[in-house]
Amino acid sequence: MRQSQLFTKTSRNFPKDETALNAQLLIRGGFVNKLMAGVYSFLPLGLRVLQKIEHIVREEMQAIGGEEVSLPVLHPKANWMETGRFETYDTLFRFTSHYSKNDYVLGPTHEEVISPLAKQFILSYQDLPRYVFQIQSKFRDEKRAKSGLLRGREFLMKDLYSFHRDDADLDAYYEKVQEAYGRVFERVGLGEDTVLTFASGGTFSKYSHEFQTLIPAGEDIIYLCEQCRVAVNKEIIEEQNTCPKCGAEKLAEARGAEVGNIFKLKTKYSAPFEFKFKDEKGASHEVVMGCYGIGISRLMGVIVERFHDEKGVLWPASVAPFTVHLLELNGASGTELAHTLEKRGISVLYDETDRGAGEKFTDADLLGMPWRAVVSPKTKGKIELKARNSEKAELISEKELITKLSISNS
Amino acid sequence: MRQSQLFTKTSRNFPKDETALNAQLLIRGGFVNKLMAGVYSFLPLGLRVLQKIEHIVREEMQAIGGEEVSLPVLHPKANWMETGRFETYDTLFRFTSHYSKNDYVLGPTHEEVISPLAKQFILSYQDLPRYVFQIQSKFRDEKRAKSGLLRGREFLMKDLYSFHRDDADLDAYYEKVQEAYGRVFERVGLGEDTVLTFASGGTFSKYSHEFQTLIPAGEDIIYLCEQCRVAVNKEIIEEQNTCPKCGAEKLAEARGAEVGNIFKLKTKYSAPFEFKFKDEKGASHEVVMGCYGIGISRLMGVIVERFHDEKGVLWPASVAPFTVHLLELNGASGTELAHTLEKRGISVLYDETDRGAGEKFTDADLLGMPWRAVVSPKTKGKIELKARNSEKAELISEKELITKLSISNS
Repeated sequence: MRQSQLFTKTSRNFPKDETALNAQLLIRGGFVNKLMAGVYSFLPLGLRVLQKIEHIVREEMQAIGGEEVSLPVLHPKANWMETGRFETYDTLFRFTSHYSKNDYVLGPTHEEVISPLAKQFILSYQDLPRYVFQIQSKFRDEKRAKSGLLRGREFLMKDLYSFHRDDADLDAYYEKVQEAYGRVFERVGLGEDTVLTFASGGTFSKYSHEFQTLIPAGEDIIYLCEQCRVAVNKEIIEEQNTCPKCGAEKLAEARGAEVGNIFKLKTKYSAPFEFKFKDEKGASHEVVMGCYGIGISRLMGVIVERFHDEKGVLWPASVAPFTVHLLELNGASGTELAHTLEKRGISVLYDETDRGAGEKFTDADLLGMPWRAVVSPKTKGKIELKARNSEKAELISEKELITKLSISNS
Repeated sequence: MRQSQLFTKTSRNFPKDETALNAQLLIRGGFVNKLMAGVYSFLPLGLRVLQKIEHIVREEMQAIGGEEVSLPVLHPKANWMETGRFETYDTLFRFTSHYSKNDYVLGPTHEEVISPLAKQFILSYQDLPRYVFQIQSKFRDEKRAKSGLLRGREFLMKDLYSFHRDDADLDAYYEKVQEAYGRVFERVGLGEDTVLTFASGGTFSKYSHEFQTLIPAGEDIIYLCEQCRVAVNKEIIEEQNTCPKCGAEKLAEARGAEVGNIFKLKTKYSAPFEFKFKDEKGASHEVVMGCYGIGISRLMGVIVERFHDEKGVLWPASVAPFTVHLLELNGASGTELAHTLEKRGISVLYDETDRGAGEKFTDADLLGMPWRAVVSPKTKGKIELKARNSEKAELISEKELITKLSISNS
């Protein structure tokens, strides 16, 4: 991609009315734009990050048998009356059409849609288990939306729903999802900083689980067991003072952002919709359900909170918009090199703009591609390569460059 | 994909409350599900079709320089007040938040968002032209929604916006988009049945253009010039009785579904947002704009209206959920063959269910994969292959099958 053709430009100014660091950096880089509080447009560079996260999540969900669907944003009020959540779900967007007088809800989650839908196809024990997921925009009528991509009124989620004949089958799949989530956070670069957190399980189970990434900007307070690297949330700490995994008594306070949750719904939603299956003997039972969320756009914000310095973002290679930012300086041309790299499948943001070195370096730091490659009269046919997370630059040949970037790319 | 694992099942019954043929067939096949009038869930088989159409549209938009973004569904009322369309746009979903008391619009189109956004990045003649597109859910508060996927309250659109320094540059790009649209409709199988249609151009140009696919269920009446295969719409026929392209006087009435439109907006939206650029001499001019839509989910409905028989859908190979529907009958096993085909990159829906031949054949016709392959004790190690759009089956070897399906796949 030639930078002179890019729809967006970087900005030197910190955006007004934006206190969250992730939003400040993402807006300055032209990754996203704020339409209003809690509502962001994803621009070409930012959408590339989002699509890479989406791709990783999709692969891991398919690997545990997930079948992809796309459920509507507009829900009929009736479905939410059925479960009682029309009245009790806080931050639910509710409205009435001017024309048709229909009452609608904008979906913040999809139990009220997937349960009656699955009921049409899951009739007997032979139709179980089933795993269905989607990646789709969700909506919450938040009173305050001040944390950038960490808490949006409109945001991108992956939600998976599982259907089982009994608790044992749910329990086994729940473990599988837990492992798949671990792989997702590992692959987007947050493996080391993301901890399994025990939360209150509601009516049916002792615990539910959240995945919390440890960042100072996290909105949640969690209690971290330094012995086994799990955490408990506030609700749990009020009930017990020990680590639920190893029993340790010393729990250190930390701040986390919830990037995923997994929840045993059991029959909470199959009951109101009379969603039942017939067993081998023809007897009817309520279907046992689980639900599992990952905040895709929130993950993008968390990655920025975790990987940045005072100059800008440091994208992990797996989600970076491009692998390398190629800068041509002082009349040298990078056109052929850009072409060569792209032919090798290495994605390049090619800065061929007619600007000074200082401005180009500042952009490269702000935009945060994993590698910065410079060609100039001084590099004499070689290339000056620097990793974004290092101060050291090295002068290497085109061949060495290709080898290095191919490894980083794979 | 093993059919026994599929989330959905086919249904023999015609859905109640659904008069549109596209919706009837798609619901019976389990491609989509109706949540309420004009609002559909896309289920695994249907989402595969939608994603294939999306992929074709994305490729063609990128080929003419389009950069992808994703703009919000929630718009602030203020932007729509700026252009006056808050009051005048019929079928606009408008509502007020219970919590924050913000006034929102659900986006049916995005001129009110993209214009002030582009204004932040397009400052001078050097920043022009620019082309930005998205593929995203849109919303219209339709009084009646009776045509299945042809007219939804929630639907998937591709919308492209272009920004130019003058009319000549807009005109040149407009021609390019027209050609790209021709390629899209060709690739999804509707090339022969889709005609360029002259529509009223509004304030700024003599004509705008629609792409209309000729189907009996089309909601629009158009007047077709049989000499040069363009059409005019109702508005134009009231002004003139001749073909705008060749001047022919004989225009035959037909029904069409609008699958795309291209429109020279000129300065209609740059003016209210004071979206201007500086030329070489430092003088300010309003940016000249174009907008170009393709209804992605509507296209899926139109494809079904165009390609079906009394038994079910006939998917064009380019958008079919799977290339081949492999049926094993009477104790024969297709497991190895399915595996071999998938290894060759040929997508297979593998019916390994324990059902009779009649039921399996009925499913294959309803679901409409381009090829049906049967293995049974009768085929004696060979495979009986039949195209969905043919009555003739042939007995061929595995090697011949692979060759045939690889060609169809490419």
